[in-house]
Amino acid sequence: MSDSPGAALRDLRERKPLIHQITNYVVMNETANATLAIGALPVMAHAVEEVEEMASAAGALVLNIGTLSRPWIEAMVLAGKAAGGPVVLDPVGVGATTFRTETARRILDEVDVAIVRGNAAEVAALAGLEAETGAEIARTAAQRLGVVAAVTGRVDHVSDGTHTTAVANGDPLLATITGSGCISTALTGCFAAVRPPLEAATIALGALGVAAEDAAREAEGPGTFHARLYDALYTLRPEALDERTNISDA
Amino acid sequence: MSDSPGAALRDLRERKPLIHQITNYVVMNETANATLAIGALPVMAHAVEEVEEMASAAGALVLNIGTLSRPWIEAMVLAGKAAGGPVVLDPVGVGATTFRTETARRILDEVDVAIVRGNAAEVAALAGLEAETGAEIARTAAQRLGVVAAVTGRVDHVSDGTHTTAVANGDPLLATITGSGCISTALTGCFAAVRPPLEAATIALGALGVAAEDAAREAEGPGTFHARLYDALYTLRPEALDERTNISDA
Amino acid sequence: MSDSPGAALRDLRERKPLIHQITNYVVMNETANATLAIGALPVMAHAVEEVEEMASAAGALVLNIGTLSRPWIEAMVLAGKAAGGPVVLDPVGVGATTFRTETARRILDEVDVAIVRGNAAEVAALAGLEAETGAEIARTAAQRLGVVAAVTGRVDHVSDGTHTTAVANGDPLLATITGSGCISTALTGCFAAVRPPLEAATIALGALGVAAEDAAREAEGPGTFHARLYDALYTLRPEALDERTNISDA
Repeated sequence: MSDSPGAALRDLRERKPLIHQITNYVVMNETANATLAIGALPVMAHAVEEVEEMASAAGALVLNIGTLSRPWIEAMVLAGKAAGGPVVLDPVGVGATTFRTETARRILDEVDVAIVRGNAAEVAALAGLEAETGAEIARTAAQRLGVVAAVTGRVDHVSDGTHTTAVANGDPLLATITGSGCISTALTGCFAAVRPPLEAATIALGALGVAAEDAAREAEGPGTFHARLYDALYTLRPEALDERTNISDA
Repeated sequence: MSDSPGAALRDLRERKPLIHQITNYVVMNETANATLAIGALPVMAHAVEEVEEMASAAGALVLNIGTLSRPWIEAMVLAGKAAGGPVVLDPVGVGATTFRTETARRILDEVDVAIVRGNAAEVAALAGLEAETGAEIARTAAQRLGVVAAVTGRVDHVSDGTHTTAVANGDPLLATITGSGCISTALTGCFAAVRPPLEAATIALGALGVAAEDAAREAEGPGTFHARLYDALYTLRPEALDERTNISDA
Repeated sequence: MSDSPGAALRDLRERKPLIHQITNYVVMNETANATLAIGALPVMAHAVEEVEEMASAAGALVLNIGTLSRPWIEAMVLAGKAAGGPVVLDPVGVGATTFRTETARRILDEVDVAIVRGNAAEVAALAGLEAETGAEIARTAAQRLGVVAAVTGRVDHVSDGTHTTAVANGDPLLATITGSGCISTALTGCFAAVRPPLEAATIALGALGVAAEDAAREAEGPGTFHARLYDALYTLRPEALDERTNISDA
């Protein structure tokens, strides 16, 4: 890492980039609130009539295929081609249905995707890999797909195919709320507007992990954890991020 | 009841069934989080291109007509016909518009629905009944529609047309948040993946009721109640469910 | 103001008007919960097959263009023409894309809109004004568009073109959650069902502001503030609203 996570967070909050998100219905409110809490500006827009104008004005574009349909796919491709900043893809459910796998591959074919963020099963399915360790999946997927691959799990791994980082932050409560993966993708989009892809994804996962540790401290279950997660992202100090992110080479 | 609610909850958490939900925009995050909190796995998918594949792989399918449109109706029917497990229907707003009434009836005609879960007005309108007591509506609707009917209210009633149960748990704060009915339907889907319809609906309503009682204890209004409801579903112990559910024959 | 805010709140809770909302995906749950918390009944419906029936039965109709697409625009226009009560428009993102600006103007052309509620940039863009103060934007937009214009900001301004009110309540945490503007529009719809437009918008913004002050008191950031905002709307006493709303002529 050529840069400190805290410095990236300071930059993000100073520049307040606009993050255009074409994402799934289940998590729209959550990713918008996480984007605001970390210090960026979310905008959701999916009409083919406006996505190019919006994507070209945004600092980054996040595409998430969690609740697909034909008109949304067309919008994602149009927005992806017009994007003025880096494009982050969340291949939700790839491997679960043929439609999702084909859609994610089509987006990778037609759009210059900078970062793919998914769990091990999704990223492995997308890259046509057998299940291996997170670090191996990230490295091989990055090479095959020509992207930075971020594979989240108990320990997260981010790779550009040459360099691979491991992020060992977070809390098990993250797995008890829907959309925690989608939130990590949205935060990756936020940092991608101010840092190169490998650093952006690594720092985003570190920031979410540290915030989750804070949120878990007084949570009594998934619901209070969820509310406190936004508090923790919002009150996250750059110095704390520098001290507490557990990032290493993998 | 041939089985204890606590045993059903233990089974659910051990098997972690996949619950495919084609539901309304307002409550998607909420029903997904309730599904996770009780111990099952939610998946939302509504594209005609993938619903059959998803529904056939799921342990149960939940159809909720709260924010209808033509493409979603087609997806519901396709998914319902392909479902690999029981189908639960939530006839949100039936009686309020002709479109909703006709859609719910079409789904009942074309899909083998196992359980209908609604409030007294919705279930009565769906079955063409005059307003009566919850127990009567449940029993008669079950007979006329050939389903298990779950009618929620201050006391909930579940009937297969022959046997009728009453569930007297819950808290008035449930009525102050949107989607508490939809959550009860989603939880019914969770238990329907591991128990027969009459038991599944009865236990689901008992579990939500007991969790609501817990959530209400330290809530200061609808917002903190809502957050604590997921905490309570997640921390609900099978023994507590057995002790505290107030289930009787009606 | 010919009437007290507390009396309007009492009326609202007694009459419990049905508020039909055709709004964006990001905030549907939030505006429904705010509507319930203040004491009205929300219903979401967007299918062209049912919006006229629903809108004609409702006490007010809220149109929000935050996540537009063609079918939704047609539904908004149909509902707006059939509305049985006042129509409130939230021009989310007008000025950001041509599509949004044109859509908001089309709705104003084809529907008898009673109140427009937006931030200064949105209302100014909609009315074709240069950025001025909130009070000037509200007054001029009201005159040009033939509506009551509600411009929210640090201090909110509401004008019918002749009379202009200023509302100085609220908390900076409102700006840290997505949908606080949309919530203010939904609450405006609630009060519009029981009071004339200028009073309705003024009282709604006062009520949200006072509730935000209460919610902020024990909040530890945006997430706990958000949960407590519904608590505060629900527990808001009419007497407290009368005492604490800071409304003046502008």
